[in-house]
Amino acid sequence: MSATIRAEVLTIGDEILFGQITDTNTQWIGTQLTDIGIRPIRKTSVGDNRQHILDALQEASQRVDVVIITGGLGPTRDDITKHTLCAYFGTSLEINQDALALVTSFFEKRGRAMTDLNIQQAALPLNATYVPNLWGTAPGMWFDHENVVYVSLPGVPYEMKNLMEFEILPRLKARFATPVIIHKSVRTIGIGESFLAETIAAWESALPEHIKLAYLPHFGQVRLRLTGTSPDEVVLRQELQAQVDLLVPQIEEYIFGYDGDDLETVVGTLLLQAGATLGTAESCTGGFVAHQITAVPGSSAYFEGSVVSYSNRIKTTVLGVSAQILEQYGAVSEQTAREMAEGARRVLNTTYAIATTGIAGPTGGTPEKPVGTVWIACATPDETFTQLLTLRNNRKINIELTSSYALNLLRKTILKTNLAVKD
Amino acid sequence: MSATIRAEVLTIGDEILFGQITDTNTQWIGTQLTDIGIRPIRKTSVGDNRQHILDALQEASQRVDVVIITGGLGPTRDDITKHTLCAYFGTSLEINQDALALVTSFFEKRGRAMTDLNIQQAALPLNATYVPNLWGTAPGMWFDHENVVYVSLPGVPYEMKNLMEFEILPRLKARFATPVIIHKSVRTIGIGESFLAETIAAWESALPEHIKLAYLPHFGQVRLRLTGTSPDEVVLRQELQAQVDLLVPQIEEYIFGYDGDDLETVVGTLLLQAGATLGTAESCTGGFVAHQITAVPGSSAYFEGSVVSYSNRIKTTVLGVSAQILEQYGAVSEQTAREMAEGARRVLNTTYAIATTGIAGPTGGTPEKPVGTVWIACATPDETFTQLLTLRNNRKINIELTSSYALNLLRKTILKTNLAVKD
Repeated sequence: MSATIRAEVLTIGDEILFGQITDTNTQWIGTQLTDIGIRPIRKTSVGDNRQHILDALQEASQRVDVVIITGGLGPTRDDITKHTLCAYFGTSLEINQDALALVTSFFEKRGRAMTDLNIQQAALPLNATYVPNLWGTAPGMWFDHENVVYVSLPGVPYEMKNLMEFEILPRLKARFATPVIIHKSVRTIGIGESFLAETIAAWESALPEHIKLAYLPHFGQVRLRLTGTSPDEVVLRQELQAQVDLLVPQIEEYIFGYDGDDLETVVGTLLLQAGATLGTAESCTGGFVAHQITAVPGSSAYFEGSVVSYSNRIKTTVLGVSAQILEQYGAVSEQTAREMAEGARRVLNTTYAIATTGIAGPTGGTPEKPVGTVWIACATPDETFTQLLTLRNNRKINIELTSSYALNLLRKTILKTNLAVKD
Repeated sequence: MSATIRAEVLTIGDEILFGQITDTNTQWIGTQLTDIGIRPIRKTSVGDNRQHILDALQEASQRVDVVIITGGLGPTRDDITKHTLCAYFGTSLEINQDALALVTSFFEKRGRAMTDLNIQQAALPLNATYVPNLWGTAPGMWFDHENVVYVSLPGVPYEMKNLMEFEILPRLKARFATPVIIHKSVRTIGIGESFLAETIAAWESALPEHIKLAYLPHFGQVRLRLTGTSPDEVVLRQELQAQVDLLVPQIEEYIFGYDGDDLETVVGTLLLQAGATLGTAESCTGGFVAHQITAVPGSSAYFEGSVVSYSNRIKTTVLGVSAQILEQYGAVSEQTAREMAEGARRVLNTTYAIATTGIAGPTGGTPEKPVGTVWIACATPDETFTQLLTLRNNRKINIELTSSYALNLLRKTILKTNLAVKD
């Protein structure tokens, strides 16, 4: 593997060293570089300190072909990356007219005045290739210096990710001769990682050497990611598809999608195909299910709305849950979940409605109903389906898991009840 | 600051470089070291590669007084940290009887048989000080070599954190005469980083050498973090408070909290103090405001619920927004936001209600109302306050920004309208 292209990710910022922000950038960059066949061999973080940054750049240049630098490009005086890059390359800053035009339009669009600090954001080292940042005010920079590529990006994850995806990764692929790497994902929900591994053990051990499998668990879901490496893209695609065709029949009931699919987009597509509408009635998820559904662009075509009935009073006054049911069975019960879903269908006048009610924690549990006890329901024109979840004692995780399982209950319900969708 | 004790955190493992796992250890270690006055100046991650680990150790020994190493201590063959440490220190492994006794009892307690691999976990470099690990099978190790302290810990967060808290941090405090480092954060919303910087430029440049300022922007908020270093904790606390007292009057209208405060907890506290209740009416945020509020444990004490009126029909049928208003001014208008907020107050029967309506994007914009046009409103028993937001063309960010500004409008409204809270 002497042809391996090696990369180092260098993050700059005292706040990272002090542990005051979570650095999610380096992990994401690591996956993206790996995906295009570039091997990250080191991650380095240094503070906003000129000498420390110079040392890190010097060291990196000795061991890798690509250095991805994030952070330290903001307009304020504690952001010193750009000046330090000038010192490192022995050059100076000059206003880049393209960058200035973009920053100017950025502020004009928002009807905001530009400050000197903002104008200075358009100043780049003379040896930099300007990489336009359409998502913020700090330009990206590309340097090709003594056979090492240096990329400098803002640390704001949203800006960094867009710059990497649309500008940097394509340039890296073009700059270096990397092998073809193709990923194919099968996405499951409702089966644990170890059970999944046992179920498909024979298939997994029969995988050819150039196709690797990774289990990527996330909130009750497991993404099975096949990664193939080959000089021949066409053959590799066929090989990957053949392996997926072998896998699917073994775990079909747990598969909700492939590759970029997620539950909210899959459910949205099913609703569109069925010409059906959706509403939610949420207690323990507090609006998170509606948020996940409406995070999908175009969801207004099938999503009508939601009633977050956090208090019992709203359950009765807005959703029409009977006080007697609440009294007799409690807010966290199959009967209440059912009445919430049916009430939402009625009040929001939708084809389907899903409901959640449970004890998210950390407090509120009882011996009979410990924290993590959750009932979900899905109402249809004909009948209502319910499901009991037994989760752990973590409020955030319980909310996200409940939302995933509620969307999956809806998905299975649509497939079961709507013949138009099945074929 | 020549007396500053400097530290480097070295994490070992291919899975970290490839981005297959989230490295939460280094952030946590950074906060812990900072809290005892040891300054992390670098974080390094390398793969399970002998030479790369040796290089990283050699480099670290040149720049820091303390090297905290995590990972690579498991029993499997790809965990090579211990052998590499032997090579680095020029020594060899030998079974440590205390370590062996602990590992043995660990397995006896669980009625599990020990393998040769487990026994090898009790083998330590001869120059290592044994640090008992009561939480797992891999011992911790402490080396004091040529005036640099090296600490090697397992990468399992639960084991690493316990070893740090109960064994390593006390030893580090005893080993080094450390200065005190204290952080103080002032949290703002509604003013950009660069405008903030200009507003407080004079104050910032007058900061003493031993107090540093960092700008940490996040979704329309900017956290101003002061970091002070001194031998005298009492004096330093007074100095930091004095600087904050100078700063606050200059930007008071933008400050929503300090240190660990965030908008949803600050608003929750204000509502509790006022004995008031809250509901939301959400269109473009699709339930995200309610989700943020209910992410706070105990929010049921003041949050009644929400109506996510994604379609105009729900705005009229559930919230009682007049069809004529929707017709005349459109769903994204000050008038509709106002009627949504007032409708939510009425339907949910709460003290306050906040409403959001806008064009989150990526589509749905018009020349008069481009994507990112958002109206928010806050209804009180006496009057209703509204605000226009002009955001960018990113659905996810528009939803999060709208939620932040809506919570901030509520915060300002409570302070303005509720005298009980003011004093």
